[in-house]
Amino acid sequence: MSLAGRPGNFGTRFHNWLYAALDLNYVYKAFTTTDLPGAVAGIRALGVRGCAVSMPYKEDVIALLDELDPSAAAIGSVNTIVNGGGFLRAYNTDYTAIRLLVEEHALDPAQTVAVRGSGGMGKAVACALRDAGFTRGTLVARNGAAGRALAERCGWAWQPEPVAADLLVNVTPIGMAGGPEAGELAFAPELIAQARTVFDVVALPAETPLIVEARAQGRPVVTGLEVVALQALEQFVLYTGVRPSPEQVQAAVAYARS
Amino acid sequence: MSLAGRPGNFGTRFHNWLYAALDLNYVYKAFTTTDLPGAVAGIRALGVRGCAVSMPYKEDVIALLDELDPSAAAIGSVNTIVNGGGFLRAYNTDYTAIRLLVEEHALDPAQTVAVRGSGGMGKAVACALRDAGFTRGTLVARNGAAGRALAERCGWAWQPEPVAADLLVNVTPIGMAGGPEAGELAFAPELIAQARTVFDVVALPAETPLIVEARAQGRPVVTGLEVVALQALEQFVLYTGVRPSPEQVQAAVAYARS
Repeated sequence: MSLAGRPGNFGTRFHNWLYAALDLNYVYKAFTTTDLPGAVAGIRALGVRGCAVSMPYKEDVIALLDELDPSAAAIGSVNTIVNGGGFLRAYNTDYTAIRLLVEEHALDPAQTVAVRGSGGMGKAVACALRDAGFTRGTLVARNGAAGRALAERCGWAWQPEPVAADLLVNVTPIGMAGGPEAGELAFAPELIAQARTVFDVVALPAETPLIVEARAQGRPVVTGLEVVALQALEQFVLYTGVRPSPEQVQAAVAYARS
Repeated sequence: MSLAGRPGNFGTRFHNWLYAALDLNYVYKAFTTTDLPGAVAGIRALGVRGCAVSMPYKEDVIALLDELDPSAAAIGSVNTIVNGGGFLRAYNTDYTAIRLLVEEHALDPAQTVAVRGSGGMGKAVACALRDAGFTRGTLVARNGAAGRALAERCGWAWQPEPVAADLLVNVTPIGMAGGPEAGELAFAPELIAQARTVFDVVALPAETPLIVEARAQGRPVVTGLEVVALQALEQFVLYTGVRPSPEQVQAAVAYARS
């Protein structure tokens, strides 16, 4: 199941599609609540196997759980609960997904990195990159208090405006379909020209203006679609113990986004 | 959803089949629990629309709910919870189904009735018949304490062994497939010969030895299958506000029992 202030359809469609494809005896349902302790009591009492956690519960839920996996402890934020016989262990598969993408794309932690965004996902991305070994980082955020705090947590610099770096990462809503900055670039073309890799966490669309521009300049990219697919896959494995094939995951993501 | 000490598949298959057939945006899932207050807290906190309640929770759950419908208040036993915006109202659709079957089969409350069985379902059946106007009743139960108590509650007589009556009703497991008395008759052929109608609440098989014998003697029958289908239908209507056609209900029951 999932708990979110405003439940979406992606998780429900992704997980149920894979349950059917793999003939697993699970069903996935999205919920919202105004009573987080009651909801967690229900997860325990009903033996619900797992629960995805979204805004605004990711931090408040911690006090109600039994154990934090390092992925959640690293950032003090939970996006996944696994119920093992009434014992609730918490994970953050956004953090895990970023760590895995650093390996998959062979991103070099000796390079410089600029992460734009200081919200919940920004924290997961920045901390994952720091823990992957990126020490030469800049946290870009107009919100000085949040930006400085996260930069300090990572041992990085803070800047209110985008700066040049080998790895550019956008974790703001800039470029998101339907948003007020849907057509804008999170990093200017000149900064993209100086970068080696461009990473956009925005997943809708997968081809944001930033990704389009980076491809046009021949820069390797990492897309938000990869983050979404990988974090959902990691949740699926935690819930079921089963790892679907890459083709199955791709098909499930395509179905869930259609 | 449902809560049962030993969850079965009937409700899950019945309700989900009708949700699909009627294109309703619901999903049904069976649960068990060792923490009834936590489970009910979860129903409230997650906004679960309805919950079927089976043994051993039918009486203990009452203290956790907000209001009893007359069907549940009449027997102090709940088999259905409906959640209206966090307000939990409790029903007993077994009771309701018996009341409806009395009307549907035009059973005459001026007749004598013998109800065999003093368990939870026996209580629902006896109280429903009493409330339908059957004043000339006998409660048949080997367990003297439970039998006398239920007889007294209905203003009926108590007998440890079956007696003659116009309406014979079996609410024991006698005749139930897989049980120790699967091949036995709840009422002897001589009593069936003296009866006007024979009613067996056992639903597996629908054609119990009692029903088979009654049909052979040309007696009108009411089967447990009718009870099961009707009580599930009443739950469905309470949960969704939608009343399926008789053909849809028949198809859903056939699917759920297959």
